[in-house]
Amino acid sequence: MKNKLYYGAAYYPELWNSEVIEQDIQEMLRLGINVVRIGEFAWSRMEPEMDLIDLGFFRRILDRFHAEGIDVIFCTPTPTPPIWMTHGHPERLHVNAEGKRMSHGSRQHCCMNHPFFRERCRIIVENIAKELGRHPALIGWQIDNEFHCHVGECFCDTCKSLWPYWLQGKYETIEALNDAWGTDVWSERYLSFDQVPQPIPTPFYHHASLTTAYQMFAREKVAEFLEEQADIIRKYSDAPITHNTNRAFKLDNERMFKRLDFASFDDYPDCDSYEDMLLNYDLFRNVKPGVPFWVMETSTSHNGHLHGYMKPHRNGFLEVEAVAAYAFGAGGFNHWLWRQQRSGCEMTHGSVLSAWGEPSVGYPGVQAVSKVRQALEPLILKSEPQQAEVAMTYSDRARVFLSTESLDRLNYLQLVNRWHSQLMWAGLHRDLIFEEAVLDGYKLWLTPFVPYLPQHLTEKGLAFAKQGGIWIVGPLTGYRTGEHTVPTNAALGELERICSFHTRAVYPISGTNAQGVAFGVRAPLGYYSAVFDETSNTRTVGWVEGGVTPGAAFIQEVPWGAGKIVLVGSTPQGKGGDEMLRAMFCYYADKAGVSLRFHSTQGTVVAPRVGEGRIIWVVVNMDGNGGSLELPCPADDLLNGGTVPAGPVRLETYEYRVFGLHS
Amino acid sequence: MKNKLYYGAAYYPELWNSEVIEQDIQEMLRLGINVVRIGEFAWSRMEPEMDLIDLGFFRRILDRFHAEGIDVIFCTPTPTPPIWMTHGHPERLHVNAEGKRMSHGSRQHCCMNHPFFRERCRIIVENIAKELGRHPALIGWQIDNEFHCHVGECFCDTCKSLWPYWLQGKYETIEALNDAWGTDVWSERYLSFDQVPQPIPTPFYHHASLTTAYQMFAREKVAEFLEEQADIIRKYSDAPITHNTNRAFKLDNERMFKRLDFASFDDYPDCDSYEDMLLNYDLFRNVKPGVPFWVMETSTSHNGHLHGYMKPHRNGFLEVEAVAAYAFGAGGFNHWLWRQQRSGCEMTHGSVLSAWGEPSVGYPGVQAVSKVRQALEPLILKSEPQQAEVAMTYSDRARVFLSTESLDRLNYLQLVNRWHSQLMWAGLHRDLIFEEAVLDGYKLWLTPFVPYLPQHLTEKGLAFAKQGGIWIVGPLTGYRTGEHTVPTNAALGELERICSFHTRAVYPISGTNAQGVAFGVRAPLGYYSAVFDETSNTRTVGWVEGGVTPGAAFIQEVPWGAGKIVLVGSTPQGKGGDEMLRAMFCYYADKAGVSLRFHSTQGTVVAPRVGEGRIIWVVVNMDGNGGSLELPCPADDLLNGGTVPAGPVRLETYEYRVFGLHS
Amino acid sequence: MKNKLYYGAAYYPELWNSEVIEQDIQEMLRLGINVVRIGEFAWSRMEPEMDLIDLGFFRRILDRFHAEGIDVIFCTPTPTPPIWMTHGHPERLHVNAEGKRMSHGSRQHCCMNHPFFRERCRIIVENIAKELGRHPALIGWQIDNEFHCHVGECFCDTCKSLWPYWLQGKYETIEALNDAWGTDVWSERYLSFDQVPQPIPTPFYHHASLTTAYQMFAREKVAEFLEEQADIIRKYSDAPITHNTNRAFKLDNERMFKRLDFASFDDYPDCDSYEDMLLNYDLFRNVKPGVPFWVMETSTSHNGHLHGYMKPHRNGFLEVEAVAAYAFGAGGFNHWLWRQQRSGCEMTHGSVLSAWGEPSVGYPGVQAVSKVRQALEPLILKSEPQQAEVAMTYSDRARVFLSTESLDRLNYLQLVNRWHSQLMWAGLHRDLIFEEAVLDGYKLWLTPFVPYLPQHLTEKGLAFAKQGGIWIVGPLTGYRTGEHTVPTNAALGELERICSFHTRAVYPISGTNAQGVAFGVRAPLGYYSAVFDETSNTRTVGWVEGGVTPGAAFIQEVPWGAGKIVLVGSTPQGKGGDEMLRAMFCYYADKAGVSLRFHSTQGTVVAPRVGEGRIIWVVVNMDGNGGSLELPCPADDLLNGGTVPAGPVRLETYEYRVFGLHS
Repeated sequence: MKNKLYYGAAYYPELWNSEVIEQDIQEMLRLGINVVRIGEFAWSRMEPEMDLIDLGFFRRILDRFHAEGIDVIFCTPTPTPPIWMTHGHPERLHVNAEGKRMSHGSRQHCCMNHPFFRERCRIIVENIAKELGRHPALIGWQIDNEFHCHVGECFCDTCKSLWPYWLQGKYETIEALNDAWGTDVWSERYLSFDQVPQPIPTPFYHHASLTTAYQMFAREKVAEFLEEQADIIRKYSDAPITHNTNRAFKLDNERMFKRLDFASFDDYPDCDSYEDMLLNYDLFRNVKPGVPFWVMETSTSHNGHLHGYMKPHRNGFLEVEAVAAYAFGAGGFNHWLWRQQRSGCEMTHGSVLSAWGEPSVGYPGVQAVSKVRQALEPLILKSEPQQAEVAMTYSDRARVFLSTESLDRLNYLQLVNRWHSQLMWAGLHRDLIFEEAVLDGYKLWLTPFVPYLPQHLTEKGLAFAKQGGIWIVGPLTGYRTGEHTVPTNAALGELERICSFHTRAVYPISGTNAQGVAFGVRAPLGYYSAVFDETSNTRTVGWVEGGVTPGAAFIQEVPWGAGKIVLVGSTPQGKGGDEMLRAMFCYYADKAGVSLRFHSTQGTVVAPRVGEGRIIWVVVNMDGNGGSLELPCPADDLLNGGTVPAGPVRLETYEYRVFGLHS
Repeated sequence: MKNKLYYGAAYYPELWNSEVIEQDIQEMLRLGINVVRIGEFAWSRMEPEMDLIDLGFFRRILDRFHAEGIDVIFCTPTPTPPIWMTHGHPERLHVNAEGKRMSHGSRQHCCMNHPFFRERCRIIVENIAKELGRHPALIGWQIDNEFHCHVGECFCDTCKSLWPYWLQGKYETIEALNDAWGTDVWSERYLSFDQVPQPIPTPFYHHASLTTAYQMFAREKVAEFLEEQADIIRKYSDAPITHNTNRAFKLDNERMFKRLDFASFDDYPDCDSYEDMLLNYDLFRNVKPGVPFWVMETSTSHNGHLHGYMKPHRNGFLEVEAVAAYAFGAGGFNHWLWRQQRSGCEMTHGSVLSAWGEPSVGYPGVQAVSKVRQALEPLILKSEPQQAEVAMTYSDRARVFLSTESLDRLNYLQLVNRWHSQLMWAGLHRDLIFEEAVLDGYKLWLTPFVPYLPQHLTEKGLAFAKQGGIWIVGPLTGYRTGEHTVPTNAALGELERICSFHTRAVYPISGTNAQGVAFGVRAPLGYYSAVFDETSNTRTVGWVEGGVTPGAAFIQEVPWGAGKIVLVGSTPQGKGGDEMLRAMFCYYADKAGVSLRFHSTQGTVVAPRVGEGRIIWVVVNMDGNGGSLELPCPADDLLNGGTVPAGPVRLETYEYRVFGLHS
Repeated sequence: MKNKLYYGAAYYPELWNSEVIEQDIQEMLRLGINVVRIGEFAWSRMEPEMDLIDLGFFRRILDRFHAEGIDVIFCTPTPTPPIWMTHGHPERLHVNAEGKRMSHGSRQHCCMNHPFFRERCRIIVENIAKELGRHPALIGWQIDNEFHCHVGECFCDTCKSLWPYWLQGKYETIEALNDAWGTDVWSERYLSFDQVPQPIPTPFYHHASLTTAYQMFAREKVAEFLEEQADIIRKYSDAPITHNTNRAFKLDNERMFKRLDFASFDDYPDCDSYEDMLLNYDLFRNVKPGVPFWVMETSTSHNGHLHGYMKPHRNGFLEVEAVAAYAFGAGGFNHWLWRQQRSGCEMTHGSVLSAWGEPSVGYPGVQAVSKVRQALEPLILKSEPQQAEVAMTYSDRARVFLSTESLDRLNYLQLVNRWHSQLMWAGLHRDLIFEEAVLDGYKLWLTPFVPYLPQHLTEKGLAFAKQGGIWIVGPLTGYRTGEHTVPTNAALGELERICSFHTRAVYPISGTNAQGVAFGVRAPLGYYSAVFDETSNTRTVGWVEGGVTPGAAFIQEVPWGAGKIVLVGSTPQGKGGDEMLRAMFCYYADKAGVSLRFHSTQGTVVAPRVGEGRIIWVVVNMDGNGGSLELPCPADDLLNGGTVPAGPVRLETYEYRVFGLHS
C-alpha cells in the first residue's frame, strides 16, 4: 500500500455503461477521490455461466483507474454467487435456525461450507488473483464482504454433517464431551458424535454448552473459508489482504484477522451514535499493530434500504467523522457508495452521486472531507497513534457466551459500548484489545463481561498485576467455564481459588432494590451479580446497601505483587452508574499512574499521536454542540498556524483542531 | 336491477332449518328488507360430493323470496371449496410467503390458480348460472367474495410454474428482464425465466423489481379468475355482476372492475372511523360512472370473530352510515349478517337477529335505517351524485410499490386516507378515481403517493394543466420507474425532464428537524422527500427551514399552458401538516376556480346531488357531536317540509337534513 | 406416607459424584431436610442404551437416604427420553401447531402418543416400580413431571392418525359431528372422520368446535398416558401417586387427579405475586379432600434459565410462603432444587446450595423454613383445614373455551386470579373446586368465566339454590354449548329457559363507555357481556348506565326455592370494579349466612384450621408490609405462648401468628 492517506468509495462499474463510468472517473478526480473498492458483488459479470470466466472488463477498469492515478482495492465476489450456483440445487443454500431455507435473490444465500460452493469460490478467486494480482492499480484485497451480515449459523445438511467431525476434533471421545458438557442433565447424554444435534427447535432452550459450541463451530468455519481464499491470493499477489467486517456480525474477528494484513470494517453511525464509532477506531487500530486500519464503508449521509433508513447526518458531521478516523489511526476512509443504486433493495442508501449523476445530499460533506484529507495527510503520514495506558479486552467469544445465556437480555455490544464511552468521558485514552493481545505498555487493564476467563488471560492478568498493573475483573466475568458450565471449585473458578477472595453468592440482583456505594457515588445495581465477603486479603471499596445481601461487597481489591486485582461483581445502573464507572476508572487510573488524560467537555474527543519527536493532539467536537479542551501546555496550531497558550480552548460546532504540544 | 333503493342482508339459508327460514322471512318483511345476498359460502350444500350437484334448495329459496317481493343477489361459492377438493391433495392448497401450506377448515385455502380448482369452479359456476340465471328474484351476481381477505400472494408449485410464463409474456427475453430490473446488482442476473425465484425467504430483502412484479402477477391472476367466472355467468344471465371487494385486500381493483357491471365492497367502520368509509363512497361511486355502487356488507353494530371485535356503534350511527351511503351514491346497503352465526369463527359478529332469533343489539339501528330508506327513496331515485371538481387518483399499483418499498414504514391506505380527509375538511367535494379515469369536468387533480407515474398519467396531467387545470404532483410521486427502479434521467424522471424543474436532492427528511413553511403555515416535514432548486420557470411556494437542505423548495409551481403543475416534494406532518394541507387545497381550489365547496364544521359532511334540475344537499352529522353548515342560499327541507333561509343550519347528534337549494 | 410435615428438595444424584452426594446428605441433615424428590430426568442414567436397564445406582441412593432417615418421592423419568429414543426417528418427535418438529436437546420433545415411546415408557416404569416399589425410603410416586410445560398440543402424524378415532368415539357418525359443530358454515362439512383436519395453519381461524375438540383430545391423551403409568406402578407398590402439575400447563387437571392419590404442583411466585400462589393452595387443597397436597417445587429465592429469571424474594418471604402452604393444607413443601445445576439451561435457577457446594443466596430462608416447620409440625398434624362456606369453580375446560375464543384477549387464569383475590380481600374464606365437586357445606357458590355450563352443573346449581344456597352465575358463563357453538334456544341456553329471565342482548360492551352501578359502587363495564331485561320473576341489582344499552340490567337475581340465582352479565373493570366485586361478594355472603369471615388488612391472610375440638387461625403477613387482624375472641398464642385478647392484633413485616380461638 502506498504512503497515502486514502479517501475513496465503493464503485460498481459492472452496473453502468462506459459513458457513465467515464463521467464518474472525471467526477472522482474533481473530488480528490484516490481509491475505489471494486468487485465484491460482481461474480455474475465475471462468470455469467459456470466456467465461462472473463475478467477482461475489470482489468480494463483497473487500467483506466491506474491511468488516472486512482488506486484500487479489489474484492473477491463470493458473497453473491450467480444463479447457476443454486438453481435446482437447494442443498447448497443456507438454512436458518428455524429450518427456513434461503433462496437466490439477495446475497449470502449459500451455505459457506458446501463443497461445491467452496470449489467454485476457489476457482473464481484463483482466476481473479492470477489476472489482477500484479496489476499496478491494485493496492489491496478484500476477501468476500461483511461475512454473516444477514445470516447467522447455518443449519443445512452440509453443516449437520461437519458438526460431529468438529466435535470429535475437539473432544476426541463422546465420553469427554458428555463429561465436559454435563449432559446427564435432562438425560441429554450422547452415545456418539453424530447424535449431537444442531441447536434446532426444541421445546425449551438447548443446553448452554451445545449452543455455545455450535456458535464457535460456525465462526471457525467462516474463518477457514477466509483463510482458504487468502492462501490462494497470496500465491499470485503481494498486496495486503483484509476483510470488511463489523462487530455486529456473527464472527470471530480475533481469529480472522490473524491471517489478514490489515483491519477494515464498515461503519454506519448516525451523527448521534458517534461513540460506538469511536470504539471501533479504538479497537481496530490495535488489531494489526502498526498498520493503519480502514473504514472500508461509511455513508455520505445516511444508509437506507427498501424498508427504512437512518436519519441523514447533520451538516458538518461527515467531516469530523473522517478527521476522527484518520486521527485515531485510519489509513483509508471509504464511502459506500459512489453512485446511488438504480435497482435492487438499497436504492435509498446515501451516496456521493445520485443514480442520475448529480450531487447527492451528502455531496457537500464529501467535498469537505476531501479538502481536510489533503490538509491532514502530511501530519498523519509523519505520525502514528499513541499507545494508550488503559486497555480493555474486547472478545467475540464473550459475546457468544452472552448470546447463549443472555441473562437479563444482555447485549454484549451495548455493555462494552457503555464501558468504552465512560472510559472516554473519564478523560482516559484507551485501547480496545483482543484476548490474545499483549499487555506491554499498559497500566490499567479491564476485562468486563467475559463470562469465561481462559487460563492464559488469568495468567496474563496475574503477571500484569504482579508487575504493578491494575486489573479490573468483571462485572459478569469468570462465572462460567470454557465449556459454558458453572465452575464447581469456586464461584469465579480458578481466579477465586488463586486469589483467595470469597464470593458470598452469585444471583440476579436486578429488581431487589440493591444499591451500590463506591467512590463516593451511589447507584442501583443490576444484572446477574457476584457479591463478596470481606476477607483478610481483600479490601472492599464498594458495598451493597439494601436488597437481599445488604452489607456485602461488590467491588473488592486484592493486592497482588506490586499491583492489584479489582473485582467488580455487579453492574451499577443508570446515570448514577455511569458516574460511578467514571469515578472508578479515574481512581484506578490515578493509582496505576496513568498519565495520558484529557480534560475536555463530553462530546469533544482527543486523538493523541506521536511523530517526529512530538505529541500531536487532534481534538474534535463530535456531538455538534461545540465544547472545550484544557491544553496542558502551549501548543502549535498545526492546521491554522500560530501558537496556542496552555489553558482552555473553545471548539465550535463540529470544529476540529490539531495541536503540536510543546514539551 | 330494479329501480329501488335497496336495503338488505347477507343470508345463509343453508345453515338453518325451514322453520327458522320462514321466521326470518317474516321478520325481513316486518323490517322492510328488500334484498338478500345468498350463496357465497354454500358450495358444500350445492355439491356435497364431487359431481353430485343439486341446486334445488337454492332455487326453492329464491322462489320463496320472490313470492315475498324480496330480491336476491346470488354469489358464486368459490371462496369455500368443500373438503373433497383438498383432502389428500396438498398440492391444491395455498402456500404463503413463509412457505406455510394452508389447510381446510377456514376459507380461501385453495390456490386460485390450481387447474383442478379452476375446473371445479367453472363447473359449479356454470351449473349455478344455468339453474338460477333467469330466476325472477335474481337482480345481480357477486363473484366469489372478498378475494384475498385472508391470504396474500400464493407461493405454491402451481404459482411457481406459472410465474416464468407470466414473466416471459411481459419481457419476451430474459435479457430484457435483466436490463429492466438491473439484476447485475448483487449478481442476481438470470439466464432463463424459470430461474427467477418467487420472493420466498432470502437473507435480506429481495430485489424491488422482483417483489413488485410478483405482486402484479398475483393480482392479475385473481382478475383472470374473476373474468373467467364472469364470462360463464354472462352466457346464462343478463343480471349485472359485481365482486365484493375491499381496498385493504391485495387486489388490482381497477383491472377487476373493468369487466364487472357495478361496484360493491364491504365496509366495517366503527363509529369513529367514518372518514375512511366516506373515502370508499367517494371512490367506488366513480368506478362505474352512472351506476350506483353497493355497500355489500356492513355490520349492524360491530364486527367480531373468536379473538376480538370492534366496539359497537354508538346509537344513531348506523342510521347516518346508511344515509351517507345512499346520498353519496349507493344503490344498495347490506348488512353482514341477518342471523348471528351459531358456529364457526365469527359467532360474535353483530347481526340483525341473534342465533336464538331475537333482536340483536344492532336491531334498533336496522329499524331506523329501514325507515329512512323509505323516506329517501324517491329523492335518491330522482337524482344522482354531482360530479366533483376536485379529483384525487387512487391506485392499487401505487400501493404495491409502497408495499415493496415501504421506506418510513409507509402505509398507502393511511396516506391517502389522510389526504382524503383533509380535502373533505377543507370543504371540497371530491372524487377519488382510478389511474385510467378521464379528467373531464375536473379543475384540480391530485396524484399523491404514486411512486411510478406512467406515461399516460403524465400526458394526461400535462394536457389537463395546459387546458387550465391545476395538477398537484406528489409527495412521493414519480421517483420510481415502472420496473421499480430509480430513474436515471432525472430525480423525478420524465416529468422533470419535460417541465424543466430541478430536484436538488431526494433523501429521507424524517429526523432531520426540517420544517416546511407554506401558505402561511409551518409544519415538520417527513418521509422520503424531494427538494427543489428555484429555477427560472418555477415558482416556489413552500420552503424548507432547518435540517440538511435549508432554503430548498419543497412545494413549487410550474406554470403550464393555462394551468399549472404543483410539485409537492415532502410530506408535512402532524396537526400543523393537516392545516398546511387544507390551506394548500383551498389555495389551489381557489386558483382553479372550484366552486363546489361547503362550509361545515368538521364531522359534518355534505353529499351533493343533482336531479330534476335542482341541486340537493344531503347534510349529515357523522361524528355524533352535532355540527353546523352554512347554507349558501335558501333551500327546501326535503325531508321535513318547509323552507330554510340561507345561513347557518345547526345539526344535532347524528342528525341529517336534505336540502333542495334555491338558486 | 408417614405422619410428618415434610420439607425437602429435588435432588439429582445422577449429576454428582459420590463425594458430593455424601456432602449433600450431611448438609440436608444439618438443615432438617426430611424428604427428597428423585428421578424425573434420569432416564439416560437408568437405561443409557435401549434395554440396558440398571437401577442399582438409585436403589443404593435410596438405601443411603433411608439410613439417614430421609424419605423419598420417586419419579418416573418419562419427560426426558434418552437419545436412543429419537435419534434417526423424527416420527417420534413432537410437532407444534406451526408444523415445527422438536429435537432432542431439551425435554418433552417426544410425542406422548407415539406407540414406541409409550412402549419404552411402560418398560422403564415397570422396571422402576418393580425395583423400588417396596423400598422403605419410598413414600410416594410422581409420574413424569410438569406435563406440557414447554409444549402444547402435538400435531405429528401419530396424533393425526389418532384424532379421527377419538372423534368417532365421541360422535359415532360424521353426520352427528357435522350437526353438532355446524360445519355448513364456510362449507366445512366433512364426509368422513379422517377428513377432519388438525387445527394446523389455515387462512383465518379454525372453526371453534374443531379447535376446542382438539384441545380436549390432547388433554385426554395426556391423562391416558398418566393413567397407564399409574396402573403399572400400582401393580408393584402401595405408595401414593401424584403428578407435579401447574395450572398454566395445557392439561385437564380434574380428569388427571381422579386417578391419583394426592395433589401436587410446582409454584414459582415472586414475593409480589403471592395471591396466585394462595389460589393454588385454595384449589389443590380440595382436589383430594382430606389428603394434604404438596408444593412439589418452589424456588428458594428465584427461578432462572439462560435468558431470564424472576427477582429474588425479599428476605423473610420464603418463610411465610412455607407457613402459608402448611397452614392452608400442604403436607410437603419442596424446593427446586437442592444443588445449583452446573450445566444445561437452568444454571441460574435459585437453589439451596451453589454448584460449588456453598450456601446460596436463598440458604438463610431455607434455614428459617426448617425451623418453623419443626415448630408447626405438631399443630398441623393435629388439625386440618376448615372447609370454606364459599366455593368458586375452577375449570380447565372453561380455560380451553377461552383459549379457542379469547374475545377481548381474555386469559382465564388472570380472570379467576382476580376473582379469587377479591374474595380473599373481601375477608371470605374460600375453596376453589373442580366442576364435579359436591357442594355440601357451601352457602355461596360462584361460577364465573365458564362459557359452557354443562347440564350437571346447572342441575347442581338449581338444587343448591333450592335448598337455600346462593349461586352467582357469570360473567362470561353459559353463552356457549358443549360443542362450542351458540345456544339457539336462548342467549344463556338452558339456564335462561328454566329460570325464565330474559337476556336483552349479548355483545362486546368494551369501548362503549358503559358504566355499571351496583351495591353502591360505579365501575366501567367490559368484555363480551349479556345484559338483561327486568321481568316479573327477576330483581335487578346492577344497572348499565350509558353505552348502547342504557337502563339494562347487568346483575339480576332470580329467587329460586329457599335461595337465589344471581346472574352477572358483565365484568366490572379497574379499581372500581374490584370494589364492586368485593361489595357483591360481601352482600351475598351476608345473604347466604356465611360466618367464616376475617377482618384483616389487605396483604395479611388467615388460614383457618380445625383440630382437637378447636379452631386454629394461622395469620400471615404475606406482602411484607405488615398488617393487622381483628381477633373475634380471645385466643391462645400457640407459637409463643400466652393469651391474646379479642380485638386488633398487629403483625410486622412477614410475621405470622398461630391462634387457638377461645370458643
